[in-house]
Amino acid sequence: MEFTAEIRAAIEDVRAEVAALHGELTRSELVVWTGGNVSGRVPGADLFVIKPSGVDYEDLRPENMILCTLDGIPVPGIPGSEAAASSDTDAHAYVYRNMPEVGGVVHTHSTYATAWAARGEPIPCVITAMADEFGGEIPVGPFAIIGDDSIGRGIVQTLRGHRSRAVLMANHGPFTIGKNARDAVKAAVMVEDVARTVHIARSGGELVPLRQEHIDALFDRYQNVYGQAPEGQL
Amino acid sequence: MEFTAEIRAAIEDVRAEVAALHGELTRSELVVWTGGNVSGRVPGADLFVIKPSGVDYEDLRPENMILCTLDGIPVPGIPGSEAAASSDTDAHAYVYRNMPEVGGVVHTHSTYATAWAARGEPIPCVITAMADEFGGEIPVGPFAIIGDDSIGRGIVQTLRGHRSRAVLMANHGPFTIGKNARDAVKAAVMVEDVARTVHIARSGGELVPLRQEHIDALFDRYQNVYGQAPEGQL
Amino acid sequence: MEFTAEIRAAIEDVRAEVAALHGELTRSELVVWTGGNVSGRVPGADLFVIKPSGVDYEDLRPENMILCTLDGIPVPGIPGSEAAASSDTDAHAYVYRNMPEVGGVVHTHSTYATAWAARGEPIPCVITAMADEFGGEIPVGPFAIIGDDSIGRGIVQTLRGHRSRAVLMANHGPFTIGKNARDAVKAAVMVEDVARTVHIARSGGELVPLRQEHIDALFDRYQNVYGQAPEGQL
Amino acid sequence: MEFTAEIRAAIEDVRAEVAALHGELTRSELVVWTGGNVSGRVPGADLFVIKPSGVDYEDLRPENMILCTLDGIPVPGIPGSEAAASSDTDAHAYVYRNMPEVGGVVHTHSTYATAWAARGEPIPCVITAMADEFGGEIPVGPFAIIGDDSIGRGIVQTLRGHRSRAVLMANHGPFTIGKNARDAVKAAVMVEDVARTVHIARSGGELVPLRQEHIDALFDRYQNVYGQAPEGQL
Repeated sequence: MEFTAEIRAAIEDVRAEVAALHGELTRSELVVWTGGNVSGRVPGADLFVIKPSGVDYEDLRPENMILCTLDGIPVPGIPGSEAAASSDTDAHAYVYRNMPEVGGVVHTHSTYATAWAARGEPIPCVITAMADEFGGEIPVGPFAIIGDDSIGRGIVQTLRGHRSRAVLMANHGPFTIGKNARDAVKAAVMVEDVARTVHIARSGGELVPLRQEHIDALFDRYQNVYGQAPEGQL
Repeated sequence: MEFTAEIRAAIEDVRAEVAALHGELTRSELVVWTGGNVSGRVPGADLFVIKPSGVDYEDLRPENMILCTLDGIPVPGIPGSEAAASSDTDAHAYVYRNMPEVGGVVHTHSTYATAWAARGEPIPCVITAMADEFGGEIPVGPFAIIGDDSIGRGIVQTLRGHRSRAVLMANHGPFTIGKNARDAVKAAVMVEDVARTVHIARSGGELVPLRQEHIDALFDRYQNVYGQAPEGQL
Repeated sequence: MEFTAEIRAAIEDVRAEVAALHGELTRSELVVWTGGNVSGRVPGADLFVIKPSGVDYEDLRPENMILCTLDGIPVPGIPGSEAAASSDTDAHAYVYRNMPEVGGVVHTHSTYATAWAARGEPIPCVITAMADEFGGEIPVGPFAIIGDDSIGRGIVQTLRGHRSRAVLMANHGPFTIGKNARDAVKAAVMVEDVARTVHIARSGGELVPLRQEHIDALFDRYQNVYGQAPEGQL
Repeated sequence: MEFTAEIRAAIEDVRAEVAALHGELTRSELVVWTGGNVSGRVPGADLFVIKPSGVDYEDLRPENMILCTLDGIPVPGIPGSEAAASSDTDAHAYVYRNMPEVGGVVHTHSTYATAWAARGEPIPCVITAMADEFGGEIPVGPFAIIGDDSIGRGIVQTLRGHRSRAVLMANHGPFTIGKNARDAVKAAVMVEDVARTVHIARSGGELVPLRQEHIDALFDRYQNVYGQAPEGQL
């Protein structure tokens, strides 16, 4: 493939960003060994960048991030990008093809989120941080087996039109989306945090539910007011 | 605003202290992503210093801490202090206006303290470290929504006249106060520690209560004897 | 003993690898103090290399790894290798003698895996990561006391012909095997990860089982497709 | 006081060792803020060295460790040793006066051990690591309030003649003893490890008890065979 200088620069930016963001997965203890993966869409092109398969976290560098088409096929002729892409590449590709507003996708087997997934149980919205970030409960997606589009389809079916940027794929673990890769990583960090807090809260007795009007008010405010440069979220 | 040299020096001291104390929140794993905030009153002035909104912990520096009036309004003309202040600034400001003895305020969503808050359940005082530090149970404050004074009012109503320097705001998380910012951070560390220990203790069977006379004796001793330079606590 | 130059080089390679892999045990928080041990078979020789007994993790170096025969006897005349070998050496040796396909063995008392072992309960396969890695439940081995071949026999009886590379020795803790030392360490990391996730999942309610055909499909795929250079696993 | 050169050297050795061992308490996450303390007996003298009160862990140095008589009184004229000693000094002193075989004492409020203490429940011996290290259950000591000899008496009454080097003081937390300060720190690390593992094990179902003859055999072996230079333990 031939790329303009602008696209080439965008590719290198996303490779650098995606490589660095994997460090957040280990710092936040969301992954063990070589599990988990981050991808990011290349702005202005039908391309995304994803982690290679089975490579140690400490060996991830911008130059070994894999550039893929939206069919999940590695793009030939990119130095460092010849290795096998993450075994979850097809799921990421499906999301990018079907949700054009998504700029980043993250998958982990983080402990508490995966525990809710192993019961096929959504996480109820009982703390304000969860209302802020996810606007309600974290939904469960269908059981789907790796190897075709079924994981991607399950993610898209569950999250399209949903406030939540996180889905708990049944018996598997969380996938998160975001307006860019960093936003999807934030959602991966936050879904584990609320999964842990709500699990522990419920293990000690009955939860006090939040009223829907409060959830709505918190979600609306957080999406529009929080931070230094509100740009809107998905 | 014009400040005397003495006040200018005090402002810079508090900005440095407040910036550094945020490192204790991450080291003690009380926060994720950009959540949580520390503030400190400027001695001798109607001012306090607080974290900017939505900035990474590793990017916090003395020079980007925000100086505010006791109405929670950022003070113009302070280099670095033009950014948006923490979205919890109004709650901190309310506490400083209404509790003149308070020199520091901390807010986190630390896991175990927030879990008790999600059940609206106070933490019972069953270990001597909790009697030492908090003088009894950790109380629950009312449910209050961000956006006006209601969080601040809930904190003040609950903690005024109470031994505890920590309140579990319902469905939200802990706020702590102290004679200065460091003392409030200590309370934030300790409330999570006792929240975790008592949760785990109770999950294994029945707790043995402490007698009130023992709680009183421990609290009195710890406030007056512990450490190198006892100065009294709130 | 006299060794060819090739065997001498292989011994040094394995000593370096085994020493370094102990760092994964501490990084993954699978061990405390001096507990736990990794060993690796020397390719092309009836020898293996194991950790010395009761030495601090930070003091482990290639040159103090102990070279042993397959009877678990330290080989004389190897500089640094005169110290007492791990007290679990006999169990490792038994595995190497009886499972020629095994190139690495790891033992820890990691918290959640040991908790299942203390109940004598196998870990049910309810998450896809576990189907990928272990192909089904993690089995429990017999209670066996240190001091003779009974631990080694229990490991071999349980794992021979089993998909799982991990066994929970009753009231004791996990032993894992692999095609080399690194593969056995990966299994030790993963068994603790799934032990923790499944424990937490079940503590919150009823688990949704995985169907056997899905477990079979996931195991088959992961053993043959995942990673950069599939070499097959045990 | 006047000391011989030999005693002066021994004092400095123990101050260095005790200062350094506090780092193990933070690395093993047994303490928060300034809580917890390690002390060590000075060989050949009626003296011990202990942490100062309320000093940050990162500021602990050999030169600010406090030298005390066996009555728990700081020895005047020792540079750096003028500060207030740990508020638990009286308890340590009582142990040294009444258990001449003890060379080190450690106290923490580590989470899981303190949780058992808050229920006044001994930790049952259901894993081989616990039989190795403690020779049976970890006993509970009486409730005792700080300020006189009652904590020290409770420790000594419980541990004298007991295999365990750890006692869970009721509603308070663990104290451990050892042949020297390092041995007591090891016991503090191990008591938290087994407290956590057994808590988690029991929270998942019924524990399988170890038979007394197996506990006896494991304890006997571990005390006499494990490690590089067996010297016997308490």
